[in-house]
Amino acid sequence: MTPDLDVIVADIVTAMGAADERGTVASYIPELAKIDPGQFGIAIATADGRILTGGDAETGFSIQSISKVFALTLALGKVGDQLWDRVGREPSGNAFNSIVQLEQEHGMPRNPFINAGAIVVADVNLGGHQPRVAIGEMLRFVRYLAGDDEVAINEAVAASETATGFRNMALANYMRAFDNVRHPVDLVLGTYFHQCAIEMSCRQLALAGRYLMLDGRHPEGGRVVSPRRARRINALMLTCGHYDASGDFAFRVGIPGKSGVGGGILAIVPGRASIAVWSPGLNASGNSQLGTLALEELAQRTGWSVFSPPPEGD
Amino acid sequence: MTPDLDVIVADIVTAMGAADERGTVASYIPELAKIDPGQFGIAIATADGRILTGGDAETGFSIQSISKVFALTLALGKVGDQLWDRVGREPSGNAFNSIVQLEQEHGMPRNPFINAGAIVVADVNLGGHQPRVAIGEMLRFVRYLAGDDEVAINEAVAASETATGFRNMALANYMRAFDNVRHPVDLVLGTYFHQCAIEMSCRQLALAGRYLMLDGRHPEGGRVVSPRRARRINALMLTCGHYDASGDFAFRVGIPGKSGVGGGILAIVPGRASIAVWSPGLNASGNSQLGTLALEELAQRTGWSVFSPPPEGD
Amino acid sequence: MTPDLDVIVADIVTAMGAADERGTVASYIPELAKIDPGQFGIAIATADGRILTGGDAETGFSIQSISKVFALTLALGKVGDQLWDRVGREPSGNAFNSIVQLEQEHGMPRNPFINAGAIVVADVNLGGHQPRVAIGEMLRFVRYLAGDDEVAINEAVAASETATGFRNMALANYMRAFDNVRHPVDLVLGTYFHQCAIEMSCRQLALAGRYLMLDGRHPEGGRVVSPRRARRINALMLTCGHYDASGDFAFRVGIPGKSGVGGGILAIVPGRASIAVWSPGLNASGNSQLGTLALEELAQRTGWSVFSPPPEGD
Amino acid sequence: MTPDLDVIVADIVTAMGAADERGTVASYIPELAKIDPGQFGIAIATADGRILTGGDAETGFSIQSISKVFALTLALGKVGDQLWDRVGREPSGNAFNSIVQLEQEHGMPRNPFINAGAIVVADVNLGGHQPRVAIGEMLRFVRYLAGDDEVAINEAVAASETATGFRNMALANYMRAFDNVRHPVDLVLGTYFHQCAIEMSCRQLALAGRYLMLDGRHPEGGRVVSPRRARRINALMLTCGHYDASGDFAFRVGIPGKSGVGGGILAIVPGRASIAVWSPGLNASGNSQLGTLALEELAQRTGWSVFSPPPEGD
Repeated sequence: MTPDLDVIVADIVTAMGAADERGTVASYIPELAKIDPGQFGIAIATADGRILTGGDAETGFSIQSISKVFALTLALGKVGDQLWDRVGREPSGNAFNSIVQLEQEHGMPRNPFINAGAIVVADVNLGGHQPRVAIGEMLRFVRYLAGDDEVAINEAVAASETATGFRNMALANYMRAFDNVRHPVDLVLGTYFHQCAIEMSCRQLALAGRYLMLDGRHPEGGRVVSPRRARRINALMLTCGHYDASGDFAFRVGIPGKSGVGGGILAIVPGRASIAVWSPGLNASGNSQLGTLALEELAQRTGWSVFSPPPEGD
Repeated sequence: MTPDLDVIVADIVTAMGAADERGTVASYIPELAKIDPGQFGIAIATADGRILTGGDAETGFSIQSISKVFALTLALGKVGDQLWDRVGREPSGNAFNSIVQLEQEHGMPRNPFINAGAIVVADVNLGGHQPRVAIGEMLRFVRYLAGDDEVAINEAVAASETATGFRNMALANYMRAFDNVRHPVDLVLGTYFHQCAIEMSCRQLALAGRYLMLDGRHPEGGRVVSPRRARRINALMLTCGHYDASGDFAFRVGIPGKSGVGGGILAIVPGRASIAVWSPGLNASGNSQLGTLALEELAQRTGWSVFSPPPEGD
Repeated sequence: MTPDLDVIVADIVTAMGAADERGTVASYIPELAKIDPGQFGIAIATADGRILTGGDAETGFSIQSISKVFALTLALGKVGDQLWDRVGREPSGNAFNSIVQLEQEHGMPRNPFINAGAIVVADVNLGGHQPRVAIGEMLRFVRYLAGDDEVAINEAVAASETATGFRNMALANYMRAFDNVRHPVDLVLGTYFHQCAIEMSCRQLALAGRYLMLDGRHPEGGRVVSPRRARRINALMLTCGHYDASGDFAFRVGIPGKSGVGGGILAIVPGRASIAVWSPGLNASGNSQLGTLALEELAQRTGWSVFSPPPEGD
Repeated sequence: MTPDLDVIVADIVTAMGAADERGTVASYIPELAKIDPGQFGIAIATADGRILTGGDAETGFSIQSISKVFALTLALGKVGDQLWDRVGREPSGNAFNSIVQLEQEHGMPRNPFINAGAIVVADVNLGGHQPRVAIGEMLRFVRYLAGDDEVAINEAVAASETATGFRNMALANYMRAFDNVRHPVDLVLGTYFHQCAIEMSCRQLALAGRYLMLDGRHPEGGRVVSPRRARRINALMLTCGHYDASGDFAFRVGIPGKSGVGGGILAIVPGRASIAVWSPGLNASGNSQLGTLALEELAQRTGWSVFSPPPEGD
C-alpha cells in the first residue's frame, strides 16, 4: 500500500510552517538575499503519475546548483563517458567552492556537483557556441523535462552572480591553466551563471526530475538517458549532492538529492517519486534547513529510503 | 521474478577465473602478502533464505576493514548516537590512513570506516575492559550474526599488524592528544588489530551481513539493530565504504559495500541480498580488483542497484 | 682586505661557461621560452662605489619576480606598515603560484614575494589610477634606483603573460572574493604583468639594488627607505626570496636574494655589495641553476655570508 | 665602538619588568605550567670574551626546543650531510607539531627544528645505543659548549613530557611507517624528551651558543664545527627557528634565533654575540613574548641585525 501521501504532505507543510529555526538566506548573491525566508514549498511527482503539492509549491525560486543535475545530463549526452576524463566522481570532502582540491589534483574537479566540476560541465555544454546558444539549449531541455514552457531564467539573478562571482572566476581561470576549461572564461561563466539562474517552482522541479525516478524514461514517452546513466546520476546525487554534508544527508534522509543555495532540493526515490522542496533559509552546510528536515520527515513516514527494503505491501 | 542467480553466480566465477588483471596483494601486512592471488569466491544470502556460493566461497580470509561494520554496530549498541560526537559521517576524500584530515578537524575522524574512525570505535568497544574481553565480545557477535561458531581470529595476522602498524599507532596517538582516544593506545590497537584479523569465508560473511538487508532483523529471529540504524549503516557503507573510491563504487556498482585489504567486500542489497566476494588482489584504491568487478557484473545482471526502480516483476 | 673580486668574478664566469647542467628555460611564458640558455652574466656593485661585471652582464633580461622587491619598496612608501594587514611575512612552504594557502588563510597571502602577495602589492600600487600611471611610476622608480634611463618594459613579454596568466587570474579573483584585491582584476594584473616584464641587464640590476646594501640610502645621495625598512626588505628576501627553496638558498648561499623565472637573481650583502646574476636555465625549484651556483661560489670565496663573522681584515 | 651594552641590558631588564602583556605559560607540559611568568633573564656573551647578564639570568629553565640546535650539531658530527637525505631545510609554514606536511612529503620533515625533524635527529643521535648513552653524550656536549658541568636534566620535566607527548608519539610512529625513524619509537622519544628537559640558565645558554658566533670555534680553543657548518646552522635558525613565526622574527629582530616553549631564546650575532633571553610567557606563535620583545629592542639599540651594514666604527 502506498502511504497516504496527501496527509503526510499536509503534516509536513504544517510542521515547517511552525518551525522556529529556519536557517539563513544566502547573502553572497545579492539578488537571493532579498528572498523572504518564511516560505516553504513541496511537490511530489509519483511514478504512477500523480502530482501532490503543498505550501508555496507554485512559487518560482532560483534553482542554482540543482541545475548541475540537468547540465550534467546534457553534457553526458554530448560527450558520453569521456566527461569522466575531465571530472571525477568522488565526494570532495570540502566546501562547494574549495580550490584546494583542484591544486592537489591538477585542475581536475572531484565531481560534477561542486562548482569547479559544474564549470567544466558548462565548458562542455558551451561546445564552441555562443553562451546564448548553450543557455537556450539548457532552457529548452529543462522545459522538456518539466513539460512546462513557462520555466525561465531570472536575468537579475544571473547579472547578480556575474558581478560577484569572483571565486567562480578564480576556479575557472585555475582550471583553464590546466586546460580543463577550454573556452574563454567569461563565456563559460556566462553560461554557468545563467544556468544557475533558472527559476522553477517546486511543481516544475519535481516534474523535471521524473526521468531520474523512471530509470531514464520521460514519463510522456521516449528516453532521456539510458537506465545505467539514470542510475549513475542518482548515485552521484547521493554521494556528492550536498557538498560536504552529502554523507549526513545520506545518513539522515537516505535518498539521492541535489541542493541549491536558493533553498531548493530535488530528491529522487527510484521507481517511486521525484520530490522538490524549497525553503530559502540555509543550514551551516549551505543546504536548505527546512527542506532537509522536510525530506527527512517524508522519508521516515513513507519508508522511502534507498537503504531499506521496499515498504511492505508496496 | 528473481533473476536466475545460480547461472549468474556461475558465470561470474568463470569470468573472474579468466581475468588477467587481478590487482596486487596488500604487502604492508606481512602475513597477508603470502596469500595466493589466484583465488576468487562469492556467496549470496538472499532475503528468502537461500545461500548461493561459487568459487572459493568456503576459504577463510582476513576480513580486515570489513570488521568495521560489525564493530560500528556493536559500538552504536553501547553508546548510541553519542558516538557521532566523536566520529563524523562524511566521506573523507582521502586515503584510508590519512592523518591530514585529523589535524584539520582537531582529532575527529570523518567517518567510522577510515582507520582513524575505526580506532575511535575500538576505543568505545574497549570500554574500560581488557582487550581480550572486547575481542571476545566482538567474536561472539560476529559468530551470532553468521550463525556459525567456527569464525575465529588469525593470531598470526593480528601479530603481523601489531608489529608493522606504525601509521595506526600514529593515528591513535594523534587522537589521544585530542582526548578522542581515551584508553591506552596499545590496548585500543590490540583490540583493533585483533578485530581486523577475524577470518571468515565468503559464506560466513554473507550470512553475517543478513541483518543489514533485513532492516536490522536477525534472520533467525530477534532484532540486531533498529530499522533506522540498519538503514544508516547501509548509508555509511555506500558513502564511505571504499575509502577514496567510495564515489566510484556507488557510481559503478550502486549498492552499499565495505571492502577490506584482505580482498573481501561485503555488499548489501536492502530487502534482497547480503553478498560477500573475495579475491586478494587489490586495485589502485586498495579495494579488491576482481571483487569490485564481480559486484559490478552482479548488479548489472540482477538490476540490484539502490539507484534504480526495483527489477520488474520482482 | 676586500677579496680580489676581479679574479673571483672571472673564475666564476669561466666555471659557469663550462657547466654542463644548465637547468631548463621557463616555458610557461612563451616569450621567455625563446631565450638562449647558454648565457650567463654577473655584476657586483660594491659599497665603495665600484662596479664589476663578467659574462653577459650587459644583456637585458626579463626581471620577472625580482620586480617584486621594487614594487614592495614602492607600496611601503605609499601605505607604510598598513600593507602588513593585507600581506603576511612568513615563508609559504609552497610553490610560487599555490592557491592552497590562500584558501586556508582567507585570502591573505603569506608574503609579498609569492605571486599572490605581489598581486596585492600591485593592487596597492595601482591606487585608483590607470595601469599606465602605476607602470610609469614603477619604471621611473627603477630607473632612479639604477641611475639609468634606458631601463624599459618588454611589451611582447607583458603581452605574453597576459595571454597565458590563468593562474595569476585565478589568484587575483580569489583574493578579490575576500576583498584583498580592490581594483578590477584586469587592471591589477595589467600592472603586475608589465612590472614583471621590465628588462634589465645584470649591471643595471646590481646598480638598482644598491639602496638595500646601504641601509636604505641612494648611493648618489638621499634616502630611498629608512634603515629599518631596508633591513626588513632584506630579511624578507632571505626568508621568502626563492619560493619553496628559500631555506635551501639561505643554507647554501647565506645572503638575501630574490630570484625571477627569467633566470635573474638579485642578492644583497649588507654594507658590502649588491649583486646581480643571470642565466636563463632554471632548477627544479624555478630558480636560476647557474645563478644560484655562481652566488654560492661567490659567497664561499668572499666570505660574504650574513651568517658568518665579517671577513677578517675587512 | 661597541655600544654600551651594560646600559642597554639594564634598560631592557627594566622595560621587561614593567611589561603588562607577558604572554601565557605553556600548559601542555604539566611541569612547565607551574613556572612563575613574572620572570625575565638575559645574558650576552660577546666575541671579545665578556659576559653581561641581567634579571633572572642565573635561574635555570627548561631549554626545550633550543636543544634542537645542539642535537643537530651532534648529529651532523655523526653522519654529516647524509642527514639531509632524511630531513629538509625549508621553513615549514606550519605549526611546530603539524603532521600534515609529513603526509604530503612522505615522512620527511621540512627541517630539523620542527618536532618531526628533531625526532629524526634524535633517532640519528641514538645510533643503536640505549637512550641513556645518547642522553649522556648530549649532556656532556652541552656542558662542554657552556664550559659548565652544572648543566643537568630535569627528570620531572622529562617524565611529564613522556606522559603527555601523544602528538610526538604520533609523529614518531608516522615517520617510522616511512622508515625515517629507525629505532623503537619509545627509545627515540625517551632520548628526545630528555634532551628537551635539559635545564640551563641564560648565562649557561649564552655561553653554550658561542661557537655559533665564532664561525664554529670553541672560545677556549678547538673547533666544534667547520665555519661552513656554523654558518649553515645559523641560516637554519634564521629561516626555521621560530616555527611559523620565523619570518616575522627575521623581519622584526633580524638575527638567527631558536626558541623553546620553556620561554627561552638563543640568538646569535655572527662575529659579535651569543645571546640568551628567557621569560616563560609565550605569544600566540608559541615563542617567548618578552624574550622576543627584548631581542627586538636589543637589535634596534645595538644595530645587531644580519640585514644591516655593520654598526659604524664597530
